[in-house]
Amino acid sequence: MTSARRPLSPSRRSQVPPFQVMDVLDRVAVLRSEGRDVVSLCAGEPSGGAPQLVSEAAARLHGSGRALTYTSALGIRELRAEIAAHYGRWYGLDVDPARVAVTTGSSGGFVLAFLAAFEAGDRVALARPGYPAYRNILSSLGCEVVEVDCGPETRYQPTPELLDAALEGGPLAGLVLASPANPTGTMVDRAELAAITAWCAANGVRLVSDEIYHGVTYPEPGAADPRGVCAWESDDSAVVLSSFSKYWGMTGWRLGWMLLPADLVRAVDALAGNVALCPPAPAQYAAVSAFAEESYRACDEAVAEFARTRTLLLEQRERLGWGESAPPDGAFYYWADLGPRLERWGSSAAYASALLEEAGVAITPGGDFDDRSGGRSVRLSFAAGPTAVAEAIDRIAAFHAG
Amino acid sequence: MTSARRPLSPSRRSQVPPFQVMDVLDRVAVLRSEGRDVVSLCAGEPSGGAPQLVSEAAARLHGSGRALTYTSALGIRELRAEIAAHYGRWYGLDVDPARVAVTTGSSGGFVLAFLAAFEAGDRVALARPGYPAYRNILSSLGCEVVEVDCGPETRYQPTPELLDAALEGGPLAGLVLASPANPTGTMVDRAELAAITAWCAANGVRLVSDEIYHGVTYPEPGAADPRGVCAWESDDSAVVLSSFSKYWGMTGWRLGWMLLPADLVRAVDALAGNVALCPPAPAQYAAVSAFAEESYRACDEAVAEFARTRTLLLEQRERLGWGESAPPDGAFYYWADLGPRLERWGSSAAYASALLEEAGVAITPGGDFDDRSGGRSVRLSFAAGPTAVAEAIDRIAAFHAG
Repeated sequence: MTSARRPLSPSRRSQVPPFQVMDVLDRVAVLRSEGRDVVSLCAGEPSGGAPQLVSEAAARLHGSGRALTYTSALGIRELRAEIAAHYGRWYGLDVDPARVAVTTGSSGGFVLAFLAAFEAGDRVALARPGYPAYRNILSSLGCEVVEVDCGPETRYQPTPELLDAALEGGPLAGLVLASPANPTGTMVDRAELAAITAWCAANGVRLVSDEIYHGVTYPEPGAADPRGVCAWESDDSAVVLSSFSKYWGMTGWRLGWMLLPADLVRAVDALAGNVALCPPAPAQYAAVSAFAEESYRACDEAVAEFARTRTLLLEQRERLGWGESAPPDGAFYYWADLGPRLERWGSSAAYASALLEEAGVAITPGGDFDDRSGGRSVRLSFAAGPTAVAEAIDRIAAFHAG
Repeated sequence: MTSARRPLSPSRRSQVPPFQVMDVLDRVAVLRSEGRDVVSLCAGEPSGGAPQLVSEAAARLHGSGRALTYTSALGIRELRAEIAAHYGRWYGLDVDPARVAVTTGSSGGFVLAFLAAFEAGDRVALARPGYPAYRNILSSLGCEVVEVDCGPETRYQPTPELLDAALEGGPLAGLVLASPANPTGTMVDRAELAAITAWCAANGVRLVSDEIYHGVTYPEPGAADPRGVCAWESDDSAVVLSSFSKYWGMTGWRLGWMLLPADLVRAVDALAGNVALCPPAPAQYAAVSAFAEESYRACDEAVAEFARTRTLLLEQRERLGWGESAPPDGAFYYWADLGPRLERWGSSAAYASALLEEAGVAITPGGDFDDRSGGRSVRLSFAAGPTAVAEAIDRIAAFHAG
């Protein structure tokens, strides 16, 4: 028996919207290949690399010629123990290493968390603006993404009131919360996070807490919770995601982790063995050194450099000539409305394109993070450091004046 | 508005059946910790590690302290070009590097391929016995898995006739083919593969061709297609998956690749950026050295060692006292019916458990690969080399005699 031939085509669920920033990055590459001097403030990644101890551990490991075979699906025991201990150091939490899952970047963690916690058809809420991969992964896994518009009045973060409104469309199975957030850099404080975990508990909603920017924070001296507040300080039924990419500067290594609610450990273990087999073994062995005192010191120095760049940016923000901006509590992002610039350029995509062509400064148009009103906003990453940011501010001011 | 509280629980789609081999592996660890000398023939991975040039490249890369940041979602240009050239070397194929996607192991490739090619609800066929992660990933992504029972009469591989029968349950969107296969090691030849690609074309079925064991093959001198036949030799609308894990011995590095049909390139690129960001950067830079002449020579030497082990095993197979076995054309697996042993032990799981406890030999019960009749069969991996396999055969013979 043979059915009628039908043309092969990509699935509907793979039709992810293209990122506007890709056009910017492609154009940066062309301009640079033509010899243009471009300041790129697009990248969401530190440029300093891993702590020296981690790089040295990796070099030794590979130099030994040791065979690097599969590890347990949830990662090597020693690294899981170090990660658990890290929660004692930063948050005073006593975490059982058996509830730590090492993942292939936080990206690999999100796929596992969403598959383990949510059914196809489940409604999952997240803030708009927000990191676009959340909604794209959820959509491709068949979940219904419920975007909750969050503006300056709530520091671009969801609140119980906003979430109550989101329930009007039907029950929610999950909420993805990011603090510090991408693209805004804003954070929820201890009371706000406790209110959200209580709301989730009252409404049967699984919290997925993205904490990958923890430690890349700019607290006042003596401030409470200088590294960020961990969702498990309120409720260990949340899935916590974190990563070696940001504080430890190891983006390309693809290594992250999750803290797992007790009821999800078995599911994530089984899924991980099938979907990923295991996280990259060389990165796992080397990352054990990320928790040495010397590594923490090196990372804190990198954060101090971000802090200096942030101070420079905030001091000179008037020269940018943009509108309202989000308070950059953490991460290395500055999210701003274009305000008076919109009149001339019409949209952040057009503005970013003109800024790149005429002034050689690359920033990210807001549409990638907010498909409703991101056309008004841009994200500037100050991970590139003070020299690049100072040069960019000069160029932007001249671009507006010219 | 607040909906009624409901208890949080893992999703139904995350309920992956546990692997029987995990019990075996856990027990191996316990016995070894008690000082028992266990020969483990469970692992589907070479123990020799990466080619020396690759390890050295990784050591240099990390030793330089270079920051390893994100790469393009489909991988670095240089590695994609080397992979494309590899298809010229082994198969005489002219592959456009733009259609090569580097992936986080072949596991990462399967997730992307299944998401890009198939909708939730699509029926996708695969051979039983087969690699369990295919069906578990497909199920978790909402596809309907259609298992096609394949026995010794077709060398445990699907044929157009078997696939016609599978169509009786409804149209198929896809077929996953593995050659060499896991757990059987059997391969389809050029004519058989061409018949399958023609059948897929006639029936609008997307072929997903798992070629991760290519090169780990045991051809007679002068045989045609000594490395295996690539699906693209017949039809480039297939997705081809391969990996650095087996021929190159780099299991823990988590690096693989796909050859993509033209219509899936954009979808996979966009999905990969969201689901994985990029494959591990250090492994990508180092893997460029996998295609040097010296690395091919080292890998061919490792395969020659597998071949010696295979010869030893086949020469002494009568001493195992098992029943019918699959022809191990490639990979490093020996799949056998337990035949006369079933009378005493009843199932392969019970047999494997007794063999481990009483004789200290660990093999994989067949239920993991075939949930219908795998209780009759076992998989022995001879990747551990001739000494381990010879010792295991002695112990198994004594175990049956004792």
